Amino acid sequence: MLSKFFPRGTDFFELFEKQAGYAVDAAVYFKKLVSDGVIEQKEIEKISSIEHQGDEATHDIFNQLNKTFITPFDREDIHDLAKELDDIIDMINTIVSRLEVYKITRIDKNLIEFASVIEDSVRAVDCAVKGMRNMKNYKSISEACVEVNRLENVGDAMRDKVLAELFETEKDPIKVIKWKEIYQDAETVLDICEDVAHVVDSIIVKQA
Amino acid sequence: MLSKFFPRGTDFFELFEKQAGYAVDAAVYFKKLVSDGVIEQKEIEKISSIEHQGDEATHDIFNQLNKTFITPFDREDIHDLAKELDDIIDMINTIVSRLEVYKITRIDKNLIEFASVIEDSVRAVDCAVKGMRNMKNYKSISEACVEVNRLENVGDAMRDKVLAELFETEKDPIKVIKWKEIYQDAETVLDICEDVAHVVDSIIVKQA
Amino acid sequence: MLSKFFPRGTDFFELFEKQAGYAVDAAVYFKKLVSDGVIEQKEIEKISSIEHQGDEATHDIFNQLNKTFITPFDREDIHDLAKELDDIIDMINTIVSRLEVYKITRIDKNLIEFASVIEDSVRAVDCAVKGMRNMKNYKSISEACVEVNRLENVGDAMRDKVLAELFETEKDPIKVIKWKEIYQDAETVLDICEDVAHVVDSIIVKQA
Repeated sequence: MLSKFFPRGTDFFELFEKQAGYAVDAAVYFKKLVSDGVIEQKEIEKISSIEHQGDEATHDIFNQLNKTFITPFDREDIHDLAKELDDIIDMINTIVSRLEVYKITRIDKNLIEFASVIEDSVRAVDCAVKGMRNMKNYKSISEACVEVNRLENVGDAMRDKVLAELFETEKDPIKVIKWKEIYQDAETVLDICEDVAHVVDSIIVKQA
Repeated sequence: MLSKFFPRGTDFFELFEKQAGYAVDAAVYFKKLVSDGVIEQKEIEKISSIEHQGDEATHDIFNQLNKTFITPFDREDIHDLAKELDDIIDMINTIVSRLEVYKITRIDKNLIEFASVIEDSVRAVDCAVKGMRNMKNYKSISEACVEVNRLENVGDAMRDKVLAELFETEKDPIKVIKWKEIYQDAETVLDICEDVAHVVDSIIVKQA
Repeated sequence: MLSKFFPRGTDFFELFEKQAGYAVDAAVYFKKLVSDGVIEQKEIEKISSIEHQGDEATHDIFNQLNKTFITPFDREDIHDLAKELDDIIDMINTIVSRLEVYKITRIDKNLIEFASVIEDSVRAVDCAVKGMRNMKNYKSISEACVEVNRLENVGDAMRDKVLAELFETEKDPIKVIKWKEIYQDAETVLDICEDVAHVVDSIIVKQA
């Protein structure tokens, strides 16, 4: 158990679980937002509000980190984990902002598929982060990280496929500009999830 | 006062103040360059020369850091602060290069507005960095950091507004490609200023 | 000689040399792929397979780093060096994927020229990395790093020149989108090589 190294008063695991929880919320609402095909202002605001909560949770971790002398694992890893978890939520929020800025009202099936893979990956990230409190969970954490890596490869292939399709079928360059960016951002969410998995993995290995 | 921890011979605060000074120079000349509506070769070269001076100041800090055993604050924070300050100047120089490469001769009002917010933000960064030499400046440093964060939000909203406008009114896709990148770069300068504020903030909190 | 600080069993220098070797392979095959003007599936797969080998070498370093208490130089520098060397290969592989996704069959002379500069830069990186095992190589390492920096400047100027040309002569916006991204990625490979040179430089200075 890592938790025995805990300085009283600061439960970093709890803070990370909170952050990961917001990331799951963002992914779930993002899938909801794109799945029904119609983007409502209410849905956009919901994700923006999750992003603000995520920001606060992240600042909380940074503040605690700066004030705490003894940490349950490497300071650098705490910093990276908090930053990457925050980046997941930020990137989902960025995609939603783009849909609004680009006045995209009809979501295509590709983005819905991406949203689904993103939700799966963020749930696996959440599972890995929640496992960290107890090193007995080593095996399930490790499996969750492998799953995140697998989904990043799935995302890579999806992005290449949908971009090839876009450049072949879409003749309006303005639409190409918009969708190219949105698909690449969607894949970036999966890249960031993989970065989180790498940090978790590295924390686990050091404790082993 | 942090300065008492200084190893004789290396005044990191002085080096940071120099870097921040170059960042202010770059922001001021950038605003000048875009404000008069005509881009002159002389103005482009001026900013490129500030960028070179900034590079040298940054390398100075890295060299001193590698040679110095005792530093006034965390080595990692010194490294990040120097890198981020350098990135401000680099990104301003990048925008100027793009204006030249894209043969943009007529600057629009949006970029002028961005240049104004950038100058304000870089001046606040400069104020925060200059305050660091004496921790009695805690309050003014903290206020400067809050201002940088506020201006980043202003920039986010500006970018979304001008991109929405661009995609709605500009029918020439080539112009959309050029200006989309320039606006996004302009907002990135404000993102980097926010990163600097975060590093300064974290240094301050650790010393408190 | 740094090697005397080596913990028995883990030869980080050997691992870095392996990574740098894969980077050279990627650069050489990339130049080959673009130079003959025709992109064959076999060539694409070759670079993708080098990328996988590079990934494994990188994970090897991270694993060893997490398990090793005493390292020949700063842990942070080991981590950064491994990551940046991996990024070189990843970015070359990304360019090749784009050529495939964008169905580009006719390579232009500009990309061939970029491939040539990239090969030169990666070979200089390899030379710097291989020198690190023995600090007597200080001078040749240093010269290799200077060469990498020089080639990054060459690449900057090339990118500006070819982008200006592209925007002036290419009237098909879709083609502008594709080639703009490819040229910028090619220049990014040289940026990453420069990052590697900076890390090597910083390791050298600390040991001096």
